[in-house]
Amino acid sequence: MADAKVRLYVDHPLGPGQSVPLDADQALYLFSVMRLGLGAAVLLFNGRDGEWWAEVAGAAKRHGLLICRQQTRPLAPPPDLWLLFAPVKKAETVFIVEKAVELGAARLCPVQTERTGSDRLNRERMQANAREAAEQCGATMVPGVDPLMPLDRLLDTWPEDRRILWCNEALAGAATALAGQPPGSWAILIGPEGGFSPREAARLAACPAVVQASLGPRILRAETAALAALTLWQAAMGDWR
Amino acid sequence: MADAKVRLYVDHPLGPGQSVPLDADQALYLFSVMRLGLGAAVLLFNGRDGEWWAEVAGAAKRHGLLICRQQTRPLAPPPDLWLLFAPVKKAETVFIVEKAVELGAARLCPVQTERTGSDRLNRERMQANAREAAEQCGATMVPGVDPLMPLDRLLDTWPEDRRILWCNEALAGAATALAGQPPGSWAILIGPEGGFSPREAARLAACPAVVQASLGPRILRAETAALAALTLWQAAMGDWR
Repeated sequence: MADAKVRLYVDHPLGPGQSVPLDADQALYLFSVMRLGLGAAVLLFNGRDGEWWAEVAGAAKRHGLLICRQQTRPLAPPPDLWLLFAPVKKAETVFIVEKAVELGAARLCPVQTERTGSDRLNRERMQANAREAAEQCGATMVPGVDPLMPLDRLLDTWPEDRRILWCNEALAGAATALAGQPPGSWAILIGPEGGFSPREAARLAACPAVVQASLGPRILRAETAALAALTLWQAAMGDWR
Repeated sequence: MADAKVRLYVDHPLGPGQSVPLDADQALYLFSVMRLGLGAAVLLFNGRDGEWWAEVAGAAKRHGLLICRQQTRPLAPPPDLWLLFAPVKKAETVFIVEKAVELGAARLCPVQTERTGSDRLNRERMQANAREAAEQCGATMVPGVDPLMPLDRLLDTWPEDRRILWCNEALAGAATALAGQPPGSWAILIGPEGGFSPREAARLAACPAVVQASLGPRILRAETAALAALTLWQAAMGDWR
Protein backbone atom coordinates (compact mmCIF):
# COMPACT_ATOMS: atom_id res chain seq x y z
CA MET A 1 0.00 0.00 0.00
CA ALA A 2 1.63 3.22 -1.16
CA ASP A 3 1.75 6.27 1.12
CA ALA A 4 -1.13 8.61 0.40
CA LYS A 5 -0.26 12.30 0.14
CA VAL A 6 -3.91 13.33 -0.06
CA ARG A 7 -6.89 12.69 2.21
CA LEU A 8 -10.21 13.60 0.66
CA TYR A 9 -13.83 13.81 1.75
CA VAL A 10 -16.20 12.53 -0.95
CA ASP A 11 -19.97 12.33 -0.95
CA HIS A 12 -20.04 8.86 -2.50
CA PRO A 13 -20.30 5.28 -1.21
CA LEU A 14 -16.98 3.60 -0.37
CA GLY A 15 -16.35 -0.16 -0.40
CA PRO A 16 -14.15 -2.88 -1.90
CA GLY A 17 -13.61 -2.21 -5.61
CA GLN A 18 -16.01 0.75 -5.50
CA SER A 19 -15.29 3.38 -8.14
CA VAL A 20 -15.53 7.01 -7.06
CA PRO A 21 -15.82 9.75 -9.68
CA LEU A 22 -14.21 13.11 -8.98
CA ASP A 23 -15.73 16.49 -9.69
CA ALA A 24 -13.84 19.31 -11.38
CA ASP A 25 -12.58 20.89 -8.14
CA GLN A 26 -11.35 17.58 -6.80
CA ALA A 27 -9.64 16.70 -10.09
CA LEU A 28 -7.96 20.11 -10.15
CA TYR A 29 -6.70 19.62 -6.59
CA LEU A 30 -5.45 16.05 -7.06
CA PHE A 31 -3.93 16.28 -10.51
CA SER A 32 -2.87 19.92 -10.91
CA VAL A 33 -2.15 21.09 -7.34
CA MET A 34 -0.91 17.81 -5.80
CA ARG A 35 0.31 16.42 -9.15
CA LEU A 36 -0.93 12.88 -8.55
CA GLY A 37 -0.82 10.50 -11.51
CA LEU A 38 -2.39 7.17 -12.42
CA GLY A 39 -1.91 4.58 -9.67
CA ALA A 40 -1.28 7.19 -6.97
CA ALA A 41 -2.78 6.49 -3.55
CA VAL A 42 -5.49 8.66 -1.97
CA LEU A 43 -7.29 8.24 1.34
CA LEU A 44 -11.06 8.72 1.14
CA PHE A 45 -13.81 9.11 3.72
CA ASN A 46 -17.48 9.98 3.38
CA GLY A 47 -18.74 10.19 6.95
CA ARG A 48 -20.40 6.75 6.72
CA ASP A 49 -18.01 4.01 5.55
CA GLY A 50 -14.78 4.76 7.44
CA GLU A 51 -11.52 5.57 5.66
CA TRP A 52 -10.46 3.84 2.43
CA TRP A 53 -7.25 3.59 0.53
CA ALA A 54 -8.01 4.22 -3.13
CA GLU A 55 -5.99 4.39 -6.35
CA VAL A 56 -6.19 6.90 -9.16
CA ALA A 57 -7.65 5.00 -12.13
CA GLY A 58 -8.42 7.97 -14.34
CA ALA A 59 -7.00 11.49 -14.37
CA ALA A 60 -8.16 14.35 -16.56
CA LYS A 61 -8.25 18.13 -16.21
CA ARG A 62 -11.86 18.36 -15.04
CA HIS A 63 -12.72 14.85 -13.91
CA GLY A 64 -11.15 11.69 -12.62
CA LEU A 65 -11.81 8.26 -11.16
CA LEU A 66 -10.62 6.54 -8.01
CA ILE A 67 -11.00 2.85 -7.15
CA CYS A 68 -11.30 1.84 -3.48
CA ARG A 69 -8.86 -0.93 -2.57
CA GLN A 70 -8.96 -1.46 1.17
CA GLN A 71 -10.47 0.03 4.33
CA THR A 72 -7.75 1.69 6.37
CA ARG A 73 -9.86 2.78 9.36
CA PRO A 74 -13.38 2.10 10.58
CA LEU A 75 -15.88 4.92 11.05
CA ALA A 76 -15.04 6.72 14.31
CA PRO A 77 -17.75 9.25 15.18
CA PRO A 78 -16.71 12.03 17.58
CA PRO A 79 -18.41 12.13 20.99
CA ASP A 80 -21.90 13.64 21.17
CA LEU A 81 -20.71 17.20 21.70
CA TRP A 82 -22.10 20.28 19.99
CA LEU A 83 -20.34 23.63 19.90
CA LEU A 84 -22.70 26.61 20.20
CA PHE A 85 -20.86 29.81 19.41
CA ALA A 86 -21.63 33.39 18.49
CA PRO A 87 -19.85 34.02 15.18
CA VAL A 88 -17.06 36.55 15.58
CA LYS A 89 -14.91 38.19 12.94
CA LYS A 90 -14.29 36.15 9.81
CA ALA A 91 -10.77 34.89 10.54
CA GLU A 92 -11.71 33.94 14.10
CA THR A 93 -14.83 32.13 12.93
CA VAL A 94 -12.82 30.07 10.43
CA PHE A 95 -10.46 29.34 13.27
CA ILE A 96 -13.22 28.19 15.64
CA VAL A 97 -14.65 25.88 12.98
CA GLU A 98 -11.27 24.39 12.09
CA LYS A 99 -10.20 23.84 15.70
CA ALA A 100 -13.58 22.45 16.77
CA VAL A 101 -13.27 19.74 14.11
CA GLU A 102 -9.71 18.91 15.17
CA LEU A 103 -10.71 18.76 18.82
CA GLY A 104 -13.66 16.52 18.01
CA ALA A 105 -16.97 18.40 18.10
CA ALA A 106 -19.83 16.53 16.40
CA ARG A 107 -21.91 19.53 15.34
CA LEU A 108 -21.35 23.26 14.97
CA CYS A 109 -24.21 25.58 15.89
CA PRO A 110 -23.75 29.31 15.21
CA VAL A 111 -25.86 31.29 17.65
CA GLN A 112 -27.23 34.80 17.25
CA THR A 113 -27.03 36.76 20.51
CA GLU A 114 -27.88 40.35 21.39
CA ARG A 115 -24.23 41.30 21.01
CA THR A 116 -23.34 39.13 18.00
CA GLY A 117 -21.98 41.47 15.37
CA SER A 118 -23.43 40.14 12.14
CA ASP A 119 -26.75 38.45 11.53
CA ARG A 120 -25.54 36.92 8.29
CA LEU A 121 -23.39 33.88 8.02
CA ASN A 122 -21.67 32.13 5.14
CA ARG A 123 -22.76 28.67 6.17
CA GLU A 124 -21.50 27.03 2.99
CA ARG A 125 -18.04 28.50 3.57
CA MET A 126 -18.06 27.29 7.17
CA GLN A 127 -19.06 23.79 6.04
CA ALA A 128 -16.16 23.81 3.58
CA ASN A 129 -13.79 24.86 6.40
CA ALA A 130 -15.10 21.95 8.49
CA ARG A 131 -14.55 19.52 5.61
CA GLU A 132 -10.98 20.71 5.06
CA ALA A 133 -10.23 20.41 8.76
CA ALA A 134 -11.60 16.85 8.82
CA GLU A 135 -9.45 15.95 5.81
CA GLN A 136 -6.42 17.35 7.61
CA CYS A 137 -6.91 15.91 11.08
CA GLY A 138 -7.81 12.34 10.18
CA ALA A 139 -11.45 12.49 11.24
CA THR A 140 -13.76 10.04 9.47
CA MET A 141 -16.82 12.33 9.70
CA VAL A 142 -17.40 16.02 8.95
CA PRO A 143 -19.42 17.85 11.62
CA GLY A 144 -22.47 19.54 10.19
CA VAL A 145 -22.78 23.32 10.41
CA ASP A 146 -26.26 24.47 11.43
CA PRO A 147 -27.96 27.64 10.19
CA LEU A 148 -27.57 30.66 12.46
CA MET A 149 -30.16 30.38 15.25
CA PRO A 150 -31.19 33.08 17.76
CA LEU A 151 -30.22 32.10 21.32
CA ASP A 152 -33.76 32.48 22.62
CA ARG A 153 -35.21 30.18 19.99
CA LEU A 154 -32.43 27.68 20.63
CA LEU A 155 -33.25 27.58 24.35
CA ASP A 156 -37.02 27.46 23.70
CA THR A 157 -36.62 24.16 21.88
CA TRP A 158 -33.61 22.78 23.74
CA PRO A 159 -33.62 18.97 24.22
CA GLU A 160 -34.05 18.16 27.91
CA ASP A 161 -31.37 15.51 28.06
CA ARG A 162 -28.49 17.54 26.59
CA ARG A 163 -26.40 19.50 29.08
CA ILE A 164 -24.90 22.87 28.19
CA LEU A 165 -21.44 23.79 29.42
CA TRP A 166 -21.56 27.58 29.64
CA CYS A 167 -18.13 29.14 29.94
CA ASN A 168 -19.15 32.21 31.87
CA GLU A 169 -16.40 34.81 31.96
CA ALA A 170 -18.17 36.60 34.83
CA LEU A 171 -17.80 33.52 36.99
CA ALA A 172 -14.94 33.30 39.44
CA GLY A 173 -13.82 29.84 40.38
CA ALA A 174 -12.34 26.68 39.03
CA ALA A 175 -12.47 25.11 35.60
CA THR A 176 -13.18 21.78 37.25
CA ALA A 177 -16.97 22.09 37.09
CA LEU A 178 -16.87 19.13 34.73
CA ALA A 179 -15.44 16.74 37.31
CA GLY A 180 -18.20 14.40 38.37
CA GLN A 181 -20.56 15.38 35.56
CA PRO A 182 -22.06 12.47 33.65
CA PRO A 183 -20.94 11.90 30.06
CA GLY A 184 -23.60 11.64 27.34
CA SER A 185 -25.07 14.44 25.25
CA TRP A 186 -23.48 17.83 25.78
CA ALA A 187 -23.08 21.22 24.17
CA ILE A 188 -20.47 23.90 24.85
CA LEU A 189 -21.75 27.48 24.73
CA ILE A 190 -19.37 30.36 23.97
CA GLY A 191 -20.63 33.93 24.01
CA PRO A 192 -19.74 36.79 21.67
CA GLU A 193 -17.08 39.43 22.28
CA GLY A 194 -18.44 41.47 25.16
CA GLY A 195 -20.35 38.50 26.57
CA PHE A 196 -24.05 37.81 26.84
CA SER A 197 -26.46 40.60 27.73
CA PRO A 198 -27.74 40.65 31.35
CA ARG A 199 -31.08 39.30 30.15
CA GLU A 200 -29.44 36.45 28.24
CA ALA A 201 -27.14 35.66 31.15
CA ALA A 202 -30.09 35.51 33.54
CA ARG A 203 -31.95 33.15 31.24
CA LEU A 204 -28.91 30.89 30.90
CA ALA A 205 -28.29 30.86 34.64
CA ALA A 206 -31.90 29.73 35.20
CA CYS A 207 -31.80 27.00 32.52
CA PRO A 208 -31.76 23.52 34.13
CA ALA A 209 -29.54 22.09 31.37
CA VAL A 210 -26.78 24.64 32.01
CA VAL A 211 -23.56 23.83 33.89
CA GLN A 212 -21.38 26.90 34.43
CA ALA A 213 -17.59 26.80 34.37
CA SER A 214 -14.79 29.34 34.62
CA LEU A 215 -11.80 29.31 32.27
CA GLY A 216 -9.27 30.83 34.60
CA PRO A 217 -8.38 34.30 35.82
CA ARG A 218 -7.53 35.92 32.47
CA ILE A 219 -10.03 37.18 29.90
CA LEU A 220 -10.06 34.77 26.97
CA ARG A 221 -11.03 35.78 23.47
CA ALA A 222 -14.08 33.93 22.17
CA GLU A 223 -12.05 31.59 19.98
CA THR A 224 -9.60 30.79 22.78
CA ALA A 225 -12.48 30.02 25.13
CA ALA A 226 -14.03 27.68 22.55
CA LEU A 227 -10.82 25.68 22.22
CA ALA A 228 -10.13 25.56 25.92
CA ALA A 229 -13.66 24.36 26.70
CA LEU A 230 -13.54 21.68 23.99
CA THR A 231 -10.22 20.46 25.41
CA LEU A 232 -11.47 20.29 28.99
CA TRP A 233 -14.61 18.45 27.93
CA GLN A 234 -12.72 15.93 25.79
CA ALA A 235 -10.28 15.18 28.59
CA ALA A 236 -13.05 14.88 31.21
CA MET A 237 -15.63 12.85 29.31
CA GLY A 238 -14.84 12.67 25.60
CA ASP A 239 -12.56 10.52 23.48
CA TRP A 240 -9.33 11.85 24.99
CA ARG A 241 -9.87 9.87 28.17
CA MET B 1 -13.23 55.99 38.91
CA ALA B 2 -14.04 56.34 35.23
CA ASP B 3 -14.19 53.29 32.98
CA ALA B 4 -10.93 52.78 31.15
CA LYS B 5 -11.17 52.00 27.43
CA VAL B 6 -7.45 51.30 27.15
CA ARG B 7 -5.13 48.93 28.98
CA LEU B 8 -1.46 49.60 28.35
CA TYR B 9 1.86 47.96 29.18
CA VAL B 10 4.52 50.53 30.10
CA ASP B 11 8.15 50.04 31.04
CA HIS B 12 8.02 52.55 33.87
CA PRO B 13 7.48 52.43 37.65
CA LEU B 14 3.86 52.69 38.81
CA GLY B 15 2.71 53.98 42.20
CA PRO B 16 0.50 56.58 43.91
CA GLY B 17 0.83 59.93 42.11
CA GLN B 18 3.54 58.52 39.86
CA SER B 19 3.78 60.27 36.50
CA VAL B 20 4.29 58.10 33.43
CA PRO B 21 5.54 59.67 30.19
CA LEU B 22 4.30 58.18 26.91
CA ASP B 23 6.42 57.56 23.85
CA ALA B 24 5.34 58.54 20.32
CA ASP B 25 3.67 55.18 19.53
CA GLN B 26 1.73 55.16 22.76
CA ALA B 27 0.63 58.78 22.31
CA LEU B 28 -0.51 58.02 18.76
CA TYR B 29 -2.53 55.05 19.97
CA LEU B 30 -4.16 56.78 22.93
CA PHE B 31 -4.88 60.18 21.46
CA SER B 32 -5.30 59.56 17.70
CA VAL B 33 -6.56 55.96 17.47
CA MET B 34 -8.55 55.74 20.72
CA ARG B 35 -9.25 59.49 20.85
CA LEU B 36 -8.67 59.86 24.58
CA GLY B 37 -8.52 63.40 25.95
CA LEU B 38 -7.29 65.07 29.15
CA GLY B 39 -8.69 63.37 32.24
CA ALA B 40 -9.47 60.11 30.44
CA ALA B 41 -8.82 56.89 32.35
CA VAL B 42 -6.21 54.32 31.31
CA LEU B 43 -5.19 51.08 32.99
CA LEU B 44 -1.44 50.56 33.23
CA PHE B 45 0.77 47.60 34.15
CA ASN B 46 4.50 47.09 33.97
CA GLY B 47 5.02 43.49 35.04
CA ARG B 48 6.18 44.52 38.53
CA ASP B 49 3.71 46.83 40.29
CA GLY B 50 0.30 45.32 39.45
CA GLU B 51 -2.37 47.22 37.56
CA TRP B 52 -3.00 50.96 38.06
CA TRP B 53 -5.75 53.30 37.12
CA ALA B 54 -4.17 56.43 35.64
CA GLU B 55 -5.46 59.69 34.18
CA VAL B 56 -4.32 61.51 31.08
CA ALA B 57 -2.58 64.68 32.32
CA GLY B 58 -0.95 65.70 29.05
CA ALA B 59 -1.81 64.83 25.46
CA ALA B 60 0.19 65.80 22.40
CA LYS B 61 0.76 64.28 18.99
CA ARG B 62 4.05 62.57 19.82
CA HIS B 63 4.11 62.47 23.59
CA GLY B 64 1.87 62.51 26.61
CA LEU B 65 1.73 62.13 30.36
CA LEU B 66 -0.32 59.88 32.62
CA ILE B 67 -0.66 60.17 36.41
CA CYS B 68 -1.26 56.99 38.45
CA ARG B 69 -4.20 57.39 40.80
CA GLN B 70 -4.94 54.04 42.37
CA GLN B 71 -3.91 50.40 42.19
CA THR B 72 -6.73 48.34 40.65
CA ARG B 73 -5.13 44.88 40.90
CA PRO B 74 -2.07 43.43 42.57
CA LEU B 75 0.66 41.72 40.57
CA ALA B 76 -0.56 38.22 39.62
CA PRO B 77 2.25 36.21 38.02
CA PRO B 78 1.15 33.25 35.87
CA PRO B 79 2.13 29.76 37.08
CA ASP B 80 5.70 28.62 36.42
CA LEU B 81 4.96 27.18 32.99
CA TRP B 82 7.10 27.61 29.90
CA LEU B 83 5.91 26.89 26.39
CA LEU B 84 8.57 25.33 24.15
CA PHE B 85 7.43 25.32 20.55
CA ALA B 86 8.86 24.95 17.09
CA PRO B 87 7.90 28.12 15.19
CA VAL B 88 5.49 27.37 12.38
CA LYS B 89 4.17 29.67 9.68
CA LYS B 90 3.90 33.34 10.59
CA ALA B 91 0.16 33.56 11.28
CA GLU B 92 0.20 30.39 13.35
CA THR B 93 3.21 31.57 15.34
CA VAL B 94 1.47 34.86 16.17
CA PHE B 95 -1.49 32.78 17.18
CA ILE B 96 0.54 30.52 19.48
CA VAL B 97 2.12 33.52 21.17
CA GLU B 98 -1.20 35.31 21.65
CA LYS B 99 -3.05 32.28 22.97
CA ALA B 100 -0.18 31.21 25.25
CA VAL B 101 -0.35 34.59 26.97
CA GLU B 102 -4.14 34.39 27.35
CA LEU B 103 -3.91 30.86 28.71
CA GLY B 104 -1.22 31.88 31.18
CA ALA B 105 2.24 30.73 30.10
CA ALA B 106 5.07 32.48 31.94
CA ARG B 107 7.75 32.22 29.25
CA LEU B 108 7.83 31.48 25.53
CA CYS B 109 10.75 29.47 24.19
CA PRO B 110 10.98 29.00 20.40
CA VAL B 111 12.83 25.78 19.66
CA GLN B 112 14.76 24.85 16.54
CA THR B 113 14.19 21.21 15.59
CA GLU B 114 15.34 19.13 12.63
CA ARG B 115 12.02 19.73 10.90
CA THR B 116 11.45 23.35 11.92
CA GLY B 117 10.99 25.30 8.71
CA SER B 118 12.83 28.52 9.33
CA ASP B 119 15.93 29.13 11.40
CA ARG B 120 15.20 32.84 11.68
CA LEU B 121 12.74 34.37 14.01
CA ASN B 122 11.41 37.87 14.51
CA ARG B 123 11.76 37.82 18.26
CA GLU B 124 10.95 41.50 18.66
CA ARG B 125 7.69 41.03 16.76
CA MET B 126 6.80 38.02 18.90
CA GLN B 127 7.49 40.01 22.05
CA ALA B 128 5.18 42.76 20.78
CA ASN B 129 2.47 40.14 20.11
CA ALA B 130 2.88 38.90 23.68
CA ARG B 131 2.59 42.45 25.04
CA GLU B 132 -0.58 43.13 23.06
CA ALA B 133 -2.12 39.85 24.24
CA ALA B 134 -1.31 40.71 27.86
CA GLU B 135 -2.92 44.14 27.43
CA GLN B 136 -6.01 42.47 26.03
CA CYS B 137 -6.45 39.58 28.46
CA GLY B 138 -5.93 41.41 31.73
CA ALA B 139 -2.58 39.84 32.62
CA THR B 140 -0.33 41.91 34.88
CA MET B 141 2.90 40.53 33.40
CA VAL B 142 4.16 39.99 29.86
CA PRO B 143 5.83 36.60 29.27
CA GLY B 144 9.33 36.95 27.90
CA VAL B 145 10.14 35.52 24.48
CA ASP B 146 13.48 33.69 24.38
CA PRO B 147 15.83 33.61 21.41
CA LEU B 148 15.43 30.59 19.13
CA MET B 149 17.34 27.68 20.69
CA PRO B 150 18.22 24.33 19.09
CA LEU B 151 16.43 21.45 20.82
CA ASP B 152 19.65 19.58 21.54
CA ARG B 153 21.25 22.55 23.24
CA LEU B 154 18.06 23.15 25.23
CA LEU B 155 18.08 19.58 26.52
CA ASP B 156 21.85 19.68 27.21
CA THR B 157 21.34 22.47 29.71
CA TRP B 158 17.86 21.60 30.93
CA PRO B 159 17.23 22.36 34.64
CA GLU B 160 16.78 19.09 36.54
CA ASP B 161 13.76 20.17 38.51
CA ARG B 162 11.57 21.34 35.61
CA ARG B 163 9.33 18.70 34.07
CA ILE B 164 8.55 18.70 30.35
CA LEU B 165 5.08 17.76 29.13
CA TRP B 166 5.70 16.34 25.69
CA CYS B 167 2.55 16.08 23.61
CA ASN B 168 3.60 13.15 21.49
CA GLU B 169 1.29 12.63 18.54
CA ALA B 170 2.68 9.12 18.01
CA LEU B 171 1.46 8.14 21.46
CA ALA B 172 -1.83 6.31 21.80
CA GLY B 173 -3.61 6.72 25.09
CA ALA B 174 -5.24 9.20 27.35
CA ALA B 175 -4.68 12.89 27.87
CA THR B 176 -4.81 12.29 31.60
CA ALA B 177 -1.06 11.75 32.03
CA LEU B 178 -1.10 14.92 34.11
CA ALA B 179 -3.34 13.48 36.81
CA GLY B 180 -1.22 12.80 39.87
CA GLN B 181 1.77 14.78 38.61
CA PRO B 182 3.18 17.26 41.11
CA PRO B 183 2.73 20.97 40.36
CA GLY B 184 5.80 23.20 40.37
CA SER B 185 8.08 24.06 37.46
CA TRP B 186 6.92 22.73 34.11
CA ALA B 187 7.35 23.23 30.39
CA ILE B 188 5.08 22.15 27.55
CA LEU B 189 6.87 20.95 24.41
CA ILE B 190 5.13 21.11 21.03
CA GLY B 191 6.86 19.76 17.93
CA PRO B 192 6.89 21.19 14.41
CA GLU B 193 4.56 20.19 11.57
CA GLY B 194 5.60 16.64 10.77
CA GLY B 195 6.72 15.97 14.33
CA PHE B 196 10.15 15.39 15.78
CA SER B 197 12.73 13.31 13.89
CA PRO B 198 13.24 9.72 15.13
CA ARG B 199 16.53 10.78 16.72
CA GLU B 200 14.91 13.71 18.53
CA ALA B 201 11.97 11.55 19.64
CA ALA B 202 14.34 8.93 21.06
CA ARG B 203 16.26 11.54 22.98
CA LEU B 204 13.06 13.03 24.40
CA ALA B 205 11.70 9.62 25.37
CA ALA B 206 14.91 8.93 27.30
CA CYS B 207 14.96 12.30 29.08
CA PRO B 208 14.09 11.88 32.79
CA ALA B 209 12.28 15.25 32.90
CA VAL B 210 9.85 14.26 30.15
CA VAL B 211 6.23 13.25 30.80
CA GLN B 212 4.46 12.08 27.64
CA ALA B 213 0.79 12.74 26.95
CA SER B 214 -1.60 12.12 24.08
CA LEU B 215 -4.03 14.78 22.87
CA GLY B 216 -6.74 12.48 21.61
CA PRO B 217 -7.32 10.38 18.51
CA ARG B 218 -7.22 13.13 15.86
CA ILE B 219 -4.11 14.78 14.48
CA LEU B 220 -3.85 18.30 15.90
CA ARG B 221 -2.05 21.11 14.14
CA ALA B 222 0.90 22.45 16.11
CA GLU B 223 -0.97 25.54 17.27
CA THR B 224 -4.02 23.53 18.35
CA ALA B 225 -1.82 21.14 20.30
CA ALA B 226 -0.14 24.07 22.08
CA LEU B 227 -3.48 25.49 23.21
CA ALA B 228 -4.92 22.15 24.24
CA ALA B 229 -1.83 21.27 26.29
CA LEU B 230 -1.78 24.67 28.00
CA THR B 231 -5.46 24.23 28.88
CA LEU B 232 -4.99 20.74 30.32
CA TRP B 233 -2.01 21.84 32.37
CA GLN B 234 -3.78 24.92 33.74
CA ALA B 235 -6.82 22.89 34.75
CA ALA B 236 -4.70 20.12 36.32
CA MET B 237 -2.11 22.16 38.21
CA GLY B 238 -2.17 25.80 37.18
CA ASP B 239 -4.25 28.82 38.14
CA TRP B 240 -7.51 27.46 36.67
CA ARG B 241 -7.93 25.03 39.56
